[in-house]
Amino acid sequence: MTTKNAFYAQSGGVTAVINASACGLLETARQHADKIGKVYAGRNGIIGALTEDLIDTSLESFEDIAALRYTPSGAFGSCRYKLKSFEENRTEYERLIAVFKAHNIGYFFYNGGGDSQDTTHRLSQLSELLGHELCCIGIPKTVDNDLPLTDNCPGFGSVAKYVAVSIREAGLDVASMARTSTKVFVLEVMGRHAGWIAAAGGLAADKEGDPPHIILFPEIVFKQEKFLAKVEDTVGKHGYCCIVVSEGVKNPDDEFLAEAGTRDAFGHAQLGGAALVVAEMVKAAHGYKYHWAVADYLQRAARHIASKTDVDQAYAMGKAAVELAIAGKTAVMPTIVRTRNNPYQWEIGVAELKDVANVEQKLPAHYITDDGFGITPECEEYLRPLIMGEDYPPYTNGLPNYVSLKNISIKKALKTAFEFEP
Amino acid sequence: MTTKNAFYAQSGGVTAVINASACGLLETARQHADKIGKVYAGRNGIIGALTEDLIDTSLESFEDIAALRYTPSGAFGSCRYKLKSFEENRTEYERLIAVFKAHNIGYFFYNGGGDSQDTTHRLSQLSELLGHELCCIGIPKTVDNDLPLTDNCPGFGSVAKYVAVSIREAGLDVASMARTSTKVFVLEVMGRHAGWIAAAGGLAADKEGDPPHIILFPEIVFKQEKFLAKVEDTVGKHGYCCIVVSEGVKNPDDEFLAEAGTRDAFGHAQLGGAALVVAEMVKAAHGYKYHWAVADYLQRAARHIASKTDVDQAYAMGKAAVELAIAGKTAVMPTIVRTRNNPYQWEIGVAELKDVANVEQKLPAHYITDDGFGITPECEEYLRPLIMGEDYPPYTNGLPNYVSLKNISIKKALKTAFEFEP
Repeated sequence: MTTKNAFYAQSGGVTAVINASACGLLETARQHADKIGKVYAGRNGIIGALTEDLIDTSLESFEDIAALRYTPSGAFGSCRYKLKSFEENRTEYERLIAVFKAHNIGYFFYNGGGDSQDTTHRLSQLSELLGHELCCIGIPKTVDNDLPLTDNCPGFGSVAKYVAVSIREAGLDVASMARTSTKVFVLEVMGRHAGWIAAAGGLAADKEGDPPHIILFPEIVFKQEKFLAKVEDTVGKHGYCCIVVSEGVKNPDDEFLAEAGTRDAFGHAQLGGAALVVAEMVKAAHGYKYHWAVADYLQRAARHIASKTDVDQAYAMGKAAVELAIAGKTAVMPTIVRTRNNPYQWEIGVAELKDVANVEQKLPAHYITDDGFGITPECEEYLRPLIMGEDYPPYTNGLPNYVSLKNISIKKALKTAFEFEP
Repeated sequence: MTTKNAFYAQSGGVTAVINASACGLLETARQHADKIGKVYAGRNGIIGALTEDLIDTSLESFEDIAALRYTPSGAFGSCRYKLKSFEENRTEYERLIAVFKAHNIGYFFYNGGGDSQDTTHRLSQLSELLGHELCCIGIPKTVDNDLPLTDNCPGFGSVAKYVAVSIREAGLDVASMARTSTKVFVLEVMGRHAGWIAAAGGLAADKEGDPPHIILFPEIVFKQEKFLAKVEDTVGKHGYCCIVVSEGVKNPDDEFLAEAGTRDAFGHAQLGGAALVVAEMVKAAHGYKYHWAVADYLQRAARHIASKTDVDQAYAMGKAAVELAIAGKTAVMPTIVRTRNNPYQWEIGVAELKDVANVEQKLPAHYITDDGFGITPECEEYLRPLIMGEDYPPYTNGLPNYVSLKNISIKKALKTAFEFEP
């Protein structure tokens, strides 16, 4: 086996642990210098490949690479950029191959969600056709937890932990003030299409009556009357009501709540997040004082409260990707296989990219309670292990000491530039 | 000295560490059983005293009391309820004294902000007049950090740490995506009147160009053009712009941004948080893709990322309150006295309540940079020690294992009820 260089890119929304996958990949690749030469990272993801902006990771110290394990976000930059199909935009694929050829790149590692796995799959099919053999390995990542064939997606467990911790803490706050102040608290969380993150809020409740009292899932059509009745009932029983709402919740007209908004006294549309819409609705119907929070990027960047399980799995996925490549595999993605629930045990599996691409894993119906406002014991059994364990970053001067890499690009070899318009 | 019982109440918005003060007070009182009999806690703060709903803390185990040190929110309930002046509502004061007399309560400990210190001060003046001698001690607490005569207020340091950690993490996220996605991120933080919390966001920046790039303080009148120019300049220089906005920021017409809102294409007012208003404004002017977050209660309940300095000081304030009472003091509040900056050293001081009541400590002008968008080195020197150290709670099943007390009320002794309408 001759030595070839590797290309690694981060894709789509970044997470608290995508750099842990990078860490696993880079540390493992360095142990196999006989097979993998240099690992080049794409600056800002696949754009770095298209524009021949390749970061030489061999210039980073072992210490800095190790620090990626506890540094959130995308250390090399990521992007939202989906390659079109080969038929639609052959130029892009030819350009990628030209860049890879110019830099003796024989391994392609793509760390992302469904679209990225699809791109990786297509590249694996096209590389031979385009005259440059390429080993193509996907590495799973998505806070939305929507990839199939893997127990879960690295990135999700840490968001899940953040959301569960946050609603537990805010719930205690509201409970202690509800006698004279806020009675309804709404936390908006990510998840445009699937309710995995919202469901994770349900882990905060140890017993009947604990917050969150209501979870609004994108899988369940929002019915205003039923919701308002549940809020009133909860405040009557417990004195307050904590709600987790997914940004993806839709009303019966199939509009996002946040888009549809509510109307003020003058009939004007009030726009804002789903949390605000829901809170205003409760206020208008019941008069309860409310507060609302929108976690937004805080939830997916919250490395300070990452799940140890998630960090370990993210690292393992990066490591396994290199091992699969060295074993001669292509068009595959390492997966997490759950072998036992309590105590949770898992091992590394492999999925064919053709089976991963374009399949979106939604929250199963039996994970949601019959009333549509909570999670079932089966759902908890699935989710709980994913938030287990803490993995604190080191602190300096009171703050997490995250690493910034040098990120030095190699010299371009091609004479042509690639016009890229974001 | 004869044994008398004590009354303890939590007042106003709760914090991540107000229970640490309760812990310090209760543990210390238990060590002085010869002087302090039982400690009764007011259920939902002062309302518990008015309604004779007194929680017998002696029924709580030593273990549970110790767990208060790492449990956020108000373990006995708090309230937003300000006693009127003696002239306006003599009945309330008479009722308090009647309840205290009936239960042999000779110590009054009130854990709160400026209003609570004012109430404590008035009670100390009135108790003799109303025929029941009462030792009255205030315990400082406010995330707003607006009490005078103390280096800082317990509760603030932990919010400060939360905000600084959050903007550092979200800033990394935005930086890694800015090439093709979000260019402007806005985090809204608490602080209606004073910019201490917003200022704490500035601690996240280690060097020129680090997030946050812009801080909007309530002390500085918001000037739209100047702000928009700064955003454009920042995106030009760094590729993205992270903003911390205080909920209390006002426009030149002295309206809160969130109230004034912006207008959509149809001239309709768009209501929402200050973060949304600011983000929409940037989008309209520059077209940048934005994201925004509102931390709301998450920031003041975030015990999982509390500052160790804050926890230690909160505990020390509760302990000192008991020691002051035993030493025969009244109408005082323990304070934090900074004796050295680097390394930070502090000791316990004492302030007269008459000097504390109704004085609001604002962010000094020299703590804000000349352009009005950042903090000065002097500000950082003041703030930095307050976020130092981590003090993680214990975890069970992936979540912080916060304590719920038994909170058993004692039998009422009075024949009359007190009508209380929140």
